[in-house]
Amino acid sequence: MKKAESGGGGGLGGDQVEGKRAVTELLKAGRRRVRTVFMVNTNVDDDIAELAGGALKLVAPQRLEQIARSDVHQGVVAQAAPLKVADLDDLLAADDAFLVALDGVTDPRNLGAILRSAETAGATGVLLPRHRSAHITPVAAKAAAGAIEYLPMALVGGIPNALERAQRAGVWCVGLDERGQRDLTELDLADQRIVIVLGAEGKGLARLTRDRCDMLVRIPMKGHVASLNVAAAATLACHEVARRRV
Amino acid sequence: MKKAESGGGGGLGGDQVEGKRAVTELLKAGRRRVRTVFMVNTNVDDDIAELAGGALKLVAPQRLEQIARSDVHQGVVAQAAPLKVADLDDLLAADDAFLVALDGVTDPRNLGAILRSAETAGATGVLLPRHRSAHITPVAAKAAAGAIEYLPMALVGGIPNALERAQRAGVWCVGLDERGQRDLTELDLADQRIVIVLGAEGKGLARLTRDRCDMLVRIPMKGHVASLNVAAAATLACHEVARRRV
Repeated sequence: MKKAESGGGGGLGGDQVEGKRAVTELLKAGRRRVRTVFMVNTNVDDDIAELAGGALKLVAPQRLEQIARSDVHQGVVAQAAPLKVADLDDLLAADDAFLVALDGVTDPRNLGAILRSAETAGATGVLLPRHRSAHITPVAAKAAAGAIEYLPMALVGGIPNALERAQRAGVWCVGLDERGQRDLTELDLADQRIVIVLGAEGKGLARLTRDRCDMLVRIPMKGHVASLNVAAAATLACHEVARRRV
Repeated sequence: MKKAESGGGGGLGGDQVEGKRAVTELLKAGRRRVRTVFMVNTNVDDDIAELAGGALKLVAPQRLEQIARSDVHQGVVAQAAPLKVADLDDLLAADDAFLVALDGVTDPRNLGAILRSAETAGATGVLLPRHRSAHITPVAAKAAAGAIEYLPMALVGGIPNALERAQRAGVWCVGLDERGQRDLTELDLADQRIVIVLGAEGKGLARLTRDRCDMLVRIPMKGHVASLNVAAAATLACHEVARRRV
């Protein structure tokens, strides 16, 4: 019964949301149609039941296991309209554009963690490659803790091409790379329209993507372990932009 | 065959390390005895094989599955001496003490991510509760990407009591809490001896722990999602300290 981890249909996914917090945020946000909220009849969460209203359907635990696509469901699974894909040009045109481009992040939990951090920093959108990238699976939705309901996401054919469009639209492209000439803490153009570009887990920015950036910045490292997790790097970069936009 | 996720024996754990990167860092660090490095005979990693030397043992994939305690092993599992537990007083006495206290982080992947970020920021040690806390399971070790080999870790009976000892030793206790009176970016005592205190996932700081802190700081939030993941919060806090210690 378990469906593929991909969102399916070439979209962003997000049509199935699992876990108490992610489902609560889905219902509270009220931004997309929620068809059914399945909940185990052995452990009813009153708050979620009230939020779900007529969409609630109590089921036996074994039935919920069949419906769930992950093991993080905590007895609650919502089926909703898929997330709407944002338009790249709209994201680029915003006066306060603060975008995050992910060039090949494949771990859904990392993707969700990045979305959560980006949203808390006030990012205005995210760019994800249509292929070879994690999309919004139930695991990603759970790690995002509701951020997917608020953060517009665009799907692009390739990050280098999307960055070229960003540059034509007057948006700065700043890549995170250990070879950066400048420290993240010196990112003085953060108050301008900007795309922060992050590479894949373990590999960093691909050459084509790196070449396309207007500037590379690095995170100062002090220990023996030479690199940060991509979600940690994204968190630092997004909150550095937030700090400079106060 | 799968053993408990806990480190076992009341210690920190770390006696089993799984996954290519974590095993590579274990072998490169050379700080503890490595008994055996099991590797699947169908996909030999030459670099790890060379580092492992006489400790290498090639096994069939089914055998490795029996030995592994997680599903993140990537065909490589090392069995090593458990991690040595650091002495709290030694950690507190260091001239440059920069410690991280985790009050009930229970997700091993979060724990590992925190250790990795703390190590890259130059933290000099970590305080973990002996009970009701994740310890160094294979999943934690993998997420730490080698940081466990370098970052001293002390086990304490309770975080509030440990903070009291820190204060008596002249170390500042700074808690991360959304009710903080001051922004993390205004943490001007970061260049002094300090313990950064983080609470459990979803719950934040327990009252006793919060009351014990000399100061509470909050991370400025801009979006609809009201909170950061604990590993993201730890990353921001540790790198803020690093920035002020340049």
